[in-house]
Amino acid sequence: MQLTDHIRAIPDYPKPGIVFRDITPLLADGAAFKHTVDTLVARYRDQGITKIVGIEARGFIFATALAYALGVGFVPLRKPGKLPRQVVSQRYALEYGEDELQLHADDITATDKVLIIDDLLATGGTVLAAVALVQALGAEIVECSFVITLHDLPGAERLNQAQIPYYTLCEF
Amino acid sequence: MQLTDHIRAIPDYPKPGIVFRDITPLLADGAAFKHTVDTLVARYRDQGITKIVGIEARGFIFATALAYALGVGFVPLRKPGKLPRQVVSQRYALEYGEDELQLHADDITATDKVLIIDDLLATGGTVLAAVALVQALGAEIVECSFVITLHDLPGAERLNQAQIPYYTLCEF
Repeated sequence: MQLTDHIRAIPDYPKPGIVFRDITPLLADGAAFKHTVDTLVARYRDQGITKIVGIEARGFIFATALAYALGVGFVPLRKPGKLPRQVVSQRYALEYGEDELQLHADDITATDKVLIIDDLLATGGTVLAAVALVQALGAEIVECSFVITLHDLPGAERLNQAQIPYYTLCEF
Repeated sequence: MQLTDHIRAIPDYPKPGIVFRDITPLLADGAAFKHTVDTLVARYRDQGITKIVGIEARGFIFATALAYALGVGFVPLRKPGKLPRQVVSQRYALEYGEDELQLHADDITATDKVLIIDDLLATGGTVLAAVALVQALGAEIVECSFVITLHDLPGAERLNQAQIPYYTLCEF
């Protein structure tokens, strides 16, 4: 099965000159979605992972299905004001301005082996914030895993420079 | 396993007098999360469901794991501006003001049998917007399913009045 056949290109979205990669056709097709998650299951089954961190909101989609399949815990990484207990926070730059991610401080401990999942790797700003939060709690990062990587943007290179292993199911 | 043991009560969050029900301890415990999803799998395995609709963002968590387990499609119901193709939209009332949910118009068809999932049933405003969107596309709603129902709020009663079957894993 070619996953890229289930990812639609939307020209000029959200603004002129940008080609948006729309994963909703992949999600709506039960066989394609199952194949995607099963590919991740095969890769991560024997790596001793104890927690899967998913980045709000599309990262949740693959992280939770994989956590269920592996029988390990799921930890949401969320925008500010969504998590009710003590959090660790990390600001990061956007193209214009900045944003912030938060993690419950007691959801991950120094003994955890963590997989970080998001749907898309672009500039890498979001995932590097996630990396900083997981590292601040002392856990080992096994890998950062994506469904799509945009190869004309510097995300993969920035993860390489930070010596964080990364994996992607497809590239555009 | 008692799921309620894994749901933490956070008094006075997000404001004084409110007891927030925090599901993140349940999610972070691999066995508890798997048990939760397996309970839903047992309930919905033989009901001919073709699509599972999850409401952004916490609804995604259970909807996607269940869609994976059942091998059926997942359809995200999102806040405005997040879905790139043609959408159907529904506004709904909040305690102060209103909000809006959107669904890709071609992600559900009149032949679909749909399960709608969210983490929490409170006033019912959000899920009734989801019901209206799925019905607007002509599909059958098998059930609306929640991890938690707050029984002192009118959500369950409003679903009953609308003759929409509903199910909850626990109540507070």
